[in-house]
Amino acid sequence: MGKSMHIGIVGYGNLGRGVEAAIGQNADMELVGVFTRRQPSDVKTADASTKVYHIDDLAAMKDQVDVLIMCGGSATDLPEMTPRLAKNFNVIDSFDTHAKIPEHFAAVDAAAKTGGTVAIISVGWDPGLFSLNRAFGQAMLPAGKDYTFWGKGVSQGHSDAVRRIEGVKDARQYTIPVEAALDQVRAGKTPELTTREKHTRLCYVVAEDGADQERIEREIVTMPNYFDEYDTEVRFISETEMAEEHSGLPHGGTVLRSGETGIEGSTKQIIEYSLHLDSNPEFTASVLVAYARANCRLYREGFSGCRTVFDIAPAYLLDMSAEDMRANLL
Amino acid sequence: MGKSMHIGIVGYGNLGRGVEAAIGQNADMELVGVFTRRQPSDVKTADASTKVYHIDDLAAMKDQVDVLIMCGGSATDLPEMTPRLAKNFNVIDSFDTHAKIPEHFAAVDAAAKTGGTVAIISVGWDPGLFSLNRAFGQAMLPAGKDYTFWGKGVSQGHSDAVRRIEGVKDARQYTIPVEAALDQVRAGKTPELTTREKHTRLCYVVAEDGADQERIEREIVTMPNYFDEYDTEVRFISETEMAEEHSGLPHGGTVLRSGETGIEGSTKQIIEYSLHLDSNPEFTASVLVAYARANCRLYREGFSGCRTVFDIAPAYLLDMSAEDMRANLL
Repeated sequence: MGKSMHIGIVGYGNLGRGVEAAIGQNADMELVGVFTRRQPSDVKTADASTKVYHIDDLAAMKDQVDVLIMCGGSATDLPEMTPRLAKNFNVIDSFDTHAKIPEHFAAVDAAAKTGGTVAIISVGWDPGLFSLNRAFGQAMLPAGKDYTFWGKGVSQGHSDAVRRIEGVKDARQYTIPVEAALDQVRAGKTPELTTREKHTRLCYVVAEDGADQERIEREIVTMPNYFDEYDTEVRFISETEMAEEHSGLPHGGTVLRSGETGIEGSTKQIIEYSLHLDSNPEFTASVLVAYARANCRLYREGFSGCRTVFDIAPAYLLDMSAEDMRANLL
Repeated sequence: MGKSMHIGIVGYGNLGRGVEAAIGQNADMELVGVFTRRQPSDVKTADASTKVYHIDDLAAMKDQVDVLIMCGGSATDLPEMTPRLAKNFNVIDSFDTHAKIPEHFAAVDAAAKTGGTVAIISVGWDPGLFSLNRAFGQAMLPAGKDYTFWGKGVSQGHSDAVRRIEGVKDARQYTIPVEAALDQVRAGKTPELTTREKHTRLCYVVAEDGADQERIEREIVTMPNYFDEYDTEVRFISETEMAEEHSGLPHGGTVLRSGETGIEGSTKQIIEYSLHLDSNPEFTASVLVAYARANCRLYREGFSGCRTVFDIAPAYLLDMSAEDMRANLL
């Protein structure tokens, strides 16, 4: 079989680099190239043979691309670029600002319907696989309670927030689930947990020479929205230690559904879904690539408009016939 | 909103009893009744208000039933009854003889297409939710390895096999995953595990008065297919202890996908899905009921034929609008 799906990557940071690698793991996919707003010659790809184009070249290459995987950020890139490109391309993104998903969905859906294209938004692990597990949990155990714990892992948003503090040269923030809370839920208890009881935050900070470390620490732990509702520990380290010990982007977490069944509603049933990721962007990229396969197939079936992970039958994600799935995976 | 889905239960054992309770937890569903091959007056339902009919009354009640949930056994009931009833009803079953799924699918699919009905087979947790997690794992991490561990829980097939031994009055067999093997996989190692290395088996046996316990133990641990490839422990207990300590049907297990991503394929990523079930039949029943909702919806959309969990978009399982799912679960 030849490569039946031709993928374009829009934007080349950690996520784009992850998608580049993930496409190489899928025999039915071919990477057309990376599309960037930078000078293409300035973009150094992980695989030297990957082609790099300017984003303005994309319009002329419409016939060569089956799906664009959008690898920009949720703050400003995706709300503008996903709907714009959906008018002419099948697109998929990892938009992760939970509160703004309905608004983003509406914009992308309108664009995709205009263009006769397929879009899938908010694909990754949260939103994405964690969302699916929340849905499955509520469907299977309607009488029950949801718990989502994140970490241990690096939160890039929180790391960035610390870096913006005066006197901070570099920072890395780890979100850490409180094991005692997790154990309570796993034991079948259904506690009401406050924000503080679910996670702690640990910041590694490289301070500028002569910076007031006490002030930096105070500014971190009292920062509204980011840290004030958590128990936060701040550790000052050297640049060398930061580079050697904290260069990765591990993450993960756990979604639990604790429910009850039976005529008296008293039988405990617990569903637990956990991710242990040595690289958050590479895993998010792998999820995007699997859903890009679904995107292609939906387009070829004649569908247009925007979908989310809730709307995609699992069979669309795999490069495997229905017969083989029933015989080998069911 | 009224009850929009009317469900019939075919067969009333542990699973049927679980379905009866699960329907009561879903506001959009109404239980039409239990359909049995026994004398209806001999069937004592958990909820005294549940109606019990003879299976022969079903044909005349076609207009009152949206979906039949088949609660018979996989050995002889379902292979015969699911295709037969699929000719006139939407049906869903938990057929779990993995090796015979393709054959069962073909029979049910042909019947459902003839009848213009929707059938979903092999719904539960394995096959079912575990199958889904194997599919998601392979889709997201194409370079990787699958692991499925079962237990700690009661295997009814193995318990029955022990009960058939001469001199055995009652028996309960627990399948127990080997924690050291699980820990290896969770730690990112990808061991090749033999059957013996993955699970142990623990049998509680009530022997007849004067029975030769040594012979019983020898017959158990050497029993082909069931025990000979495992380390099996046999404990003789009293009838009282059996009734007090081993009357439940707990089960569960873990599906792991251990994969690698990145341009060098060396970044470890682990997905773990676990169930901790105090009642195996009640949970299987809850899964069946959620998929019965999908069955109804597919039928109302005009689909006919047989499907499996791989073919069902998660949104079909929940009594929630697409807007609410995006706003609250994504």
